[in-house]
Amino acid sequence: MRVDENQLEGINKEHLSLHDDTYNFLGNMLSKQGKDVDGILKKLADFQVAIPSWALGAGGTRFGRFGFQGEPSTLEQKIDDVGILHKLTQTAGAISLHIPWDVPSDYKAIKEVAASHDIIFDAVNSNTFQDQKNAKESYKFGSLSNINKASRDQAIAHNIDVINIGDKLGSKSLTIWLADGSNFPGQSNFQHVLQNTEDSVKEIYKALPEDWKMFIEYKPYEPNFYSTVIQDWGTSFMLANACGDKAYSLVDLGHHLPNTNIEQIVSTLMMKGKLGGFHFNDSKYGDDDVTVGSIKPYSLFLIFNSLVYGMENNPQNPYPAWMIDASHNIKDPLEDLIQSLEAIQEAYAKALLIDQDQLAAAQKDNDVVKCQEILQNAYRTDVRPLIEKARISRGGAINPIETYRALKVRQGLIKERGINSVASGL
Amino acid sequence: MRVDENQLEGINKEHLSLHDDTYNFLGNMLSKQGKDVDGILKKLADFQVAIPSWALGAGGTRFGRFGFQGEPSTLEQKIDDVGILHKLTQTAGAISLHIPWDVPSDYKAIKEVAASHDIIFDAVNSNTFQDQKNAKESYKFGSLSNINKASRDQAIAHNIDVINIGDKLGSKSLTIWLADGSNFPGQSNFQHVLQNTEDSVKEIYKALPEDWKMFIEYKPYEPNFYSTVIQDWGTSFMLANACGDKAYSLVDLGHHLPNTNIEQIVSTLMMKGKLGGFHFNDSKYGDDDVTVGSIKPYSLFLIFNSLVYGMENNPQNPYPAWMIDASHNIKDPLEDLIQSLEAIQEAYAKALLIDQDQLAAAQKDNDVVKCQEILQNAYRTDVRPLIEKARISRGGAINPIETYRALKVRQGLIKERGINSVASGL
Amino acid sequence: MRVDENQLEGINKEHLSLHDDTYNFLGNMLSKQGKDVDGILKKLADFQVAIPSWALGAGGTRFGRFGFQGEPSTLEQKIDDVGILHKLTQTAGAISLHIPWDVPSDYKAIKEVAASHDIIFDAVNSNTFQDQKNAKESYKFGSLSNINKASRDQAIAHNIDVINIGDKLGSKSLTIWLADGSNFPGQSNFQHVLQNTEDSVKEIYKALPEDWKMFIEYKPYEPNFYSTVIQDWGTSFMLANACGDKAYSLVDLGHHLPNTNIEQIVSTLMMKGKLGGFHFNDSKYGDDDVTVGSIKPYSLFLIFNSLVYGMENNPQNPYPAWMIDASHNIKDPLEDLIQSLEAIQEAYAKALLIDQDQLAAAQKDNDVVKCQEILQNAYRTDVRPLIEKARISRGGAINPIETYRALKVRQGLIKERGINSVASGL
Amino acid sequence: MRVDENQLEGINKEHLSLHDDTYNFLGNMLSKQGKDVDGILKKLADFQVAIPSWALGAGGTRFGRFGFQGEPSTLEQKIDDVGILHKLTQTAGAISLHIPWDVPSDYKAIKEVAASHDIIFDAVNSNTFQDQKNAKESYKFGSLSNINKASRDQAIAHNIDVINIGDKLGSKSLTIWLADGSNFPGQSNFQHVLQNTEDSVKEIYKALPEDWKMFIEYKPYEPNFYSTVIQDWGTSFMLANACGDKAYSLVDLGHHLPNTNIEQIVSTLMMKGKLGGFHFNDSKYGDDDVTVGSIKPYSLFLIFNSLVYGMENNPQNPYPAWMIDASHNIKDPLEDLIQSLEAIQEAYAKALLIDQDQLAAAQKDNDVVKCQEILQNAYRTDVRPLIEKARISRGGAINPIETYRALKVRQGLIKERGINSVASGL
Repeated sequence: MRVDENQLEGINKEHLSLHDDTYNFLGNMLSKQGKDVDGILKKLADFQVAIPSWALGAGGTRFGRFGFQGEPSTLEQKIDDVGILHKLTQTAGAISLHIPWDVPSDYKAIKEVAASHDIIFDAVNSNTFQDQKNAKESYKFGSLSNINKASRDQAIAHNIDVINIGDKLGSKSLTIWLADGSNFPGQSNFQHVLQNTEDSVKEIYKALPEDWKMFIEYKPYEPNFYSTVIQDWGTSFMLANACGDKAYSLVDLGHHLPNTNIEQIVSTLMMKGKLGGFHFNDSKYGDDDVTVGSIKPYSLFLIFNSLVYGMENNPQNPYPAWMIDASHNIKDPLEDLIQSLEAIQEAYAKALLIDQDQLAAAQKDNDVVKCQEILQNAYRTDVRPLIEKARISRGGAINPIETYRALKVRQGLIKERGINSVASGL
Repeated sequence: MRVDENQLEGINKEHLSLHDDTYNFLGNMLSKQGKDVDGILKKLADFQVAIPSWALGAGGTRFGRFGFQGEPSTLEQKIDDVGILHKLTQTAGAISLHIPWDVPSDYKAIKEVAASHDIIFDAVNSNTFQDQKNAKESYKFGSLSNINKASRDQAIAHNIDVINIGDKLGSKSLTIWLADGSNFPGQSNFQHVLQNTEDSVKEIYKALPEDWKMFIEYKPYEPNFYSTVIQDWGTSFMLANACGDKAYSLVDLGHHLPNTNIEQIVSTLMMKGKLGGFHFNDSKYGDDDVTVGSIKPYSLFLIFNSLVYGMENNPQNPYPAWMIDASHNIKDPLEDLIQSLEAIQEAYAKALLIDQDQLAAAQKDNDVVKCQEILQNAYRTDVRPLIEKARISRGGAINPIETYRALKVRQGLIKERGINSVASGL
Repeated sequence: MRVDENQLEGINKEHLSLHDDTYNFLGNMLSKQGKDVDGILKKLADFQVAIPSWALGAGGTRFGRFGFQGEPSTLEQKIDDVGILHKLTQTAGAISLHIPWDVPSDYKAIKEVAASHDIIFDAVNSNTFQDQKNAKESYKFGSLSNINKASRDQAIAHNIDVINIGDKLGSKSLTIWLADGSNFPGQSNFQHVLQNTEDSVKEIYKALPEDWKMFIEYKPYEPNFYSTVIQDWGTSFMLANACGDKAYSLVDLGHHLPNTNIEQIVSTLMMKGKLGGFHFNDSKYGDDDVTVGSIKPYSLFLIFNSLVYGMENNPQNPYPAWMIDASHNIKDPLEDLIQSLEAIQEAYAKALLIDQDQLAAAQKDNDVVKCQEILQNAYRTDVRPLIEKARISRGGAINPIETYRALKVRQGLIKERGINSVASGL
Repeated sequence: MRVDENQLEGINKEHLSLHDDTYNFLGNMLSKQGKDVDGILKKLADFQVAIPSWALGAGGTRFGRFGFQGEPSTLEQKIDDVGILHKLTQTAGAISLHIPWDVPSDYKAIKEVAASHDIIFDAVNSNTFQDQKNAKESYKFGSLSNINKASRDQAIAHNIDVINIGDKLGSKSLTIWLADGSNFPGQSNFQHVLQNTEDSVKEIYKALPEDWKMFIEYKPYEPNFYSTVIQDWGTSFMLANACGDKAYSLVDLGHHLPNTNIEQIVSTLMMKGKLGGFHFNDSKYGDDDVTVGSIKPYSLFLIFNSLVYGMENNPQNPYPAWMIDASHNIKDPLEDLIQSLEAIQEAYAKALLIDQDQLAAAQKDNDVVKCQEILQNAYRTDVRPLIEKARISRGGAINPIETYRALKVRQGLIKERGINSVASGL
């Protein structure tokens, strides 16, 4: 199923007059304040976030899963879903595959489907936190860090497979989320598993094509509840340095202990040229994986402030790979993703409004009150007209959620795929 | 020192045209959406928050204190400071005294000073967490919960003194923050100290004038680091119920364990008619007592959503007593308080914009996406023009911080009071 | 499969001489200190903890599950597993059923199996956090709190069914863990869902037989990640009070926000006569459900100090129903449960060693150092000989884990049940 | 005041028979298990922990301070206090000075006093978190990270002064705890302050004598409540690497976010040869600085397991500098320190009892249950007789707390120094 361009335009027309009013007013205000509105619009329009292939179906918790209807059950259907998202929001121009859930059988066909939606293949993700049917070795006690070489070798080989699959699709980066760790004190020797992990990622690194990057994710806990081998940015950073120039850290917003200052970590990594990937979601308690911006939007804005600063001032850092990494336990996954994409654009737009010169001057004067005013002035601005403008400049919907509903997309998908289709993944 | 009305008006004039533009645009939009803009403006204008008498000087941490210049060193000067705040913001029409730091010597004179600023005396606060010079009994091991009756009696008598002092000033409520607890396992018997506390607050309750309320604050830790007698809302609620109809719980935003859902606690207490007082501040780690809205403004908005709902739907709950309970370690306390007051008004205004009927309908349909949209629509609105409007309707400044600086208030206070004046308090 | 009594005795004989040495030395020491060693032994021998029927198979996380071999696939087999545990440890004399996972088809037969193992049926547990096949209403948006009456009614009826099933087996209590809550701000109206919950539990309470108790569990988050209706002890306590004398709170060690002082909550509830049930587990991050005592054994000891104090001094509180509520992701579930049972006995034994008179005297003197010494003296004592003694006095194993392995129990179970048997449950 | 050797021996004699009984029994048991009891005793006897000069007086919180009597008011008296501690415990053979609180006026005299107590001067500590009277520049907005060069230079110069002072006393290491950070988003530019800090520590490093070490402490928050420049081990490690071989990280137990796995950090740092210093304390909520082992003794044991492993297997890591960094708000500081020292010795002794060969074998087999058993077997052993033995082997007290009280040390100090003496420090 695809979004009909004419229908989309028809719906946009209904909202256009209101949009024009608010955009004109806001644009005018911002111009008076000396903002480069066109430059901001361009940045917003260019900002594209990858959707992971497993996020198009219903998620769940260890206590169960409430299904959703019309889930995509093939890779083509998943790409179609991202296509719908991208058509409406113009912000989801990439998909991030999880292997072995999404191994293409016909690469050419898959690439054509993606191209038809104007979607590229971003970072590919390996999975060594579950045992696959018929796997020779188990990851019950770890994969890249496992005390047994055979398990490590299997996990290394799997990662290299993932690189090869990604390479055929045009991906340029591999994301390693290593769930390895321990549930009980004494279960593993911290130094041995860290050394094993370093050796393993170096092996994978060797197989990395010249123009690829490797992203090393970190997480303090879950699914292991006593220790995790790559528990924090420090460990990830150390491993990336051990591998070489093409290895980077990856920050996932939900992968931190309570109260961590994430924006500071972002700044440190970009200063050192080592922020490679970035996963969006939100959370109140742990790695809750709820809709981006639904719990702590100001924190997201502060993180974007660090990201914007880094993108403008740290040439040593590559342009990061963006991905949404959220779960959809009780919402329609596509609606949830639209809300996440809007929240990301909102935070980005507000961060772009921060007057960096004024801020630097106030910091120099230790005028703490003024510094806060500058940030809050940007944050308190209602930037929705800007985001709408950027979206329609690329042919998207003024109001994606309303349009999605008006177009009866979910009903169409159910019709096409049935009520009981199930997406692979968690 | 007082804010000169003419000067204030002069500064306002410079900002008026911009204010009119933005207000007219926003007001128009909101009216089209069916909002009762005048009703909202009235509520904003009526909303008054008490300033605690000890918050006009520099705060500190256990590692020290960096002083500030021009601090008020008498109660009159403290009231003058609140007067300045109130003149500029029109939101600080009350002061909350801490005894024994602010015992008036001449009640009539003090009341006249306050009246001249249009300031009332809100809840009075007792202090049994420090030993006063020449005190007969020590609170080192507790006050209202102390295992020794003499200490308990002294603390009870002090609270009754505080009531009497407040009574002479026109206060109508007593706030008890009981810091009692223990630093080490085994140090105290949980049941004994809880029973002592219940007995003590009942004694104080007996001395409460008929038209007074008693607020029982709770806090999980600090200054005691193992246990606190009144550690959570459940304990506070239980004690309030044990006392009677005039006893209530008091919620302080910083007094919760990490990740607590405070807005839910607010709703529960108001449903049961037991939310009496409310202390504003913000925090990232613990009871950090930083500027309201500086860390988690969305959380503040959600809490205001609960407050607004309760004020409109829970006649069983009295109108709460509002106070700012923040510390000012590195900012000019008056500027910090202005920022806090603005953040409070902002969260309140946004909560007032939530379409409660639509929200109830979406909740009824379990349309989770729509519920979120409704809240975020309200939150994403730039309500600053509304707040400005409410402020100038009462004679305040369009832009209080800028006005404060343009009027060189701090310089005036330093001139009046000197560089080394020190406020009593923490 | 059953543990062979002769084999067990044979293994015990090998350890007896060492046990006697250590027990005699310790018993002698404790007697010299004035301890009533026989009284302590009797208390230890009498202490029985229920095993939940779903805890005999491998657990998992939302990221997957690593299977275990020889899992029980019928209720009879589950009772057999508890029988093995009880034979070895003499501490697991009860099973706690989860409905609908474990509805007996032949009550008489099931009761005979249990009786043959000397096992009783403790609290029965309802499940309204998952949708059952063919269920008319869904719990996706709540059960007892659901905004839709039909879902609430179904959940109420289910709970009443559970009571009836339990009644036929000799259970005397119902445990309600209500997972209801919301994942996003605005999703539900806090006051409505709380009121619905109060109404629902009152309905269930009406169906409670005269000699039954109802336990209301609380939990701050998971599976819902924004709010949980019964989020803390205060809410549970309020609901229990609203129901009546037979309703109680249930404390699960993993169901608290970070750093909560649980032993204080235990003391408060027992003082008010409202601690009905208690679930053991351990955790480092959230509701990790790992082996009891594996992470914070001193905390468990302090909690037992509160429990022991309450059992001896609070006649207003009934004897609590004990249950282990842990998950077994990477250990043999039976070995894991043995480790949990030993940790419980250890904490209980140490708490019984606390000299309560000395402690009360030191508390009276505010001799904080002494209070700590008294607790630590008890805690630092190696009480393993006492636990062994209590165990063999009832016919259990001196060393249950070693015995379990020596008897090749797991191998026997695999032989009986096969490699791929799967237990119902999570 | 000094402990009288004869009196000490007299008191020991009273406890000797009981000690002998328990020691003989335990020693015998351990020998049978193949433990090298003499080797363990030697390690325990050799283990010496520095006492910070500011920890001999009463501590406080931001809410106040309850004084203590007989506090040392001169550096000589502080050393005398450590001398008393060392005489009784034989574990406190070092003092760690804080500058500018403890600048000696007569170096030779001070060294003689220390030598007379058999006490050496361990790491010296700089203080740039407070403004000293007459200081030219303020640290209100930072010291080594300050945006203003003059403040940075003053802080660098102070650290070099501290090195020079330490050098004259025989210290061989400098500890830098940098409290710098920010209280509000936007207040500082994360990259600028980090770069400033790196430049500043490199300047200090240049002044380090050849045989000295520099320790860089980290802490997530307090006294700054939004960000801290050196917020975690990763940042500290990065800075230490930037300085060179003589720069190391310093771990303080209280300086971590909730639920951090500290023992893993210890292992990582030692593996990389970068754990230079270690500060002991305990906490439940934040940096509570309560008595070592009073809240989480098992966690301390696990950390010691990492330390012992590192000391035995990581020749690349220097022997760490140990210090107690706790506050004494309601206990006699000397009694509190004795309790801390005993808890440290206990955790160390238990960690030494872990059978590392068995553990490695069980880890190799992924026998998680066995791994836990091995750790818990060591932990559950009552090692007090070992510690007593190690202590008396050096001439200390069998029971230091009881001896301290029997000798009426505090009363003697009050007599000598008066009731109102006040120690410099926090």
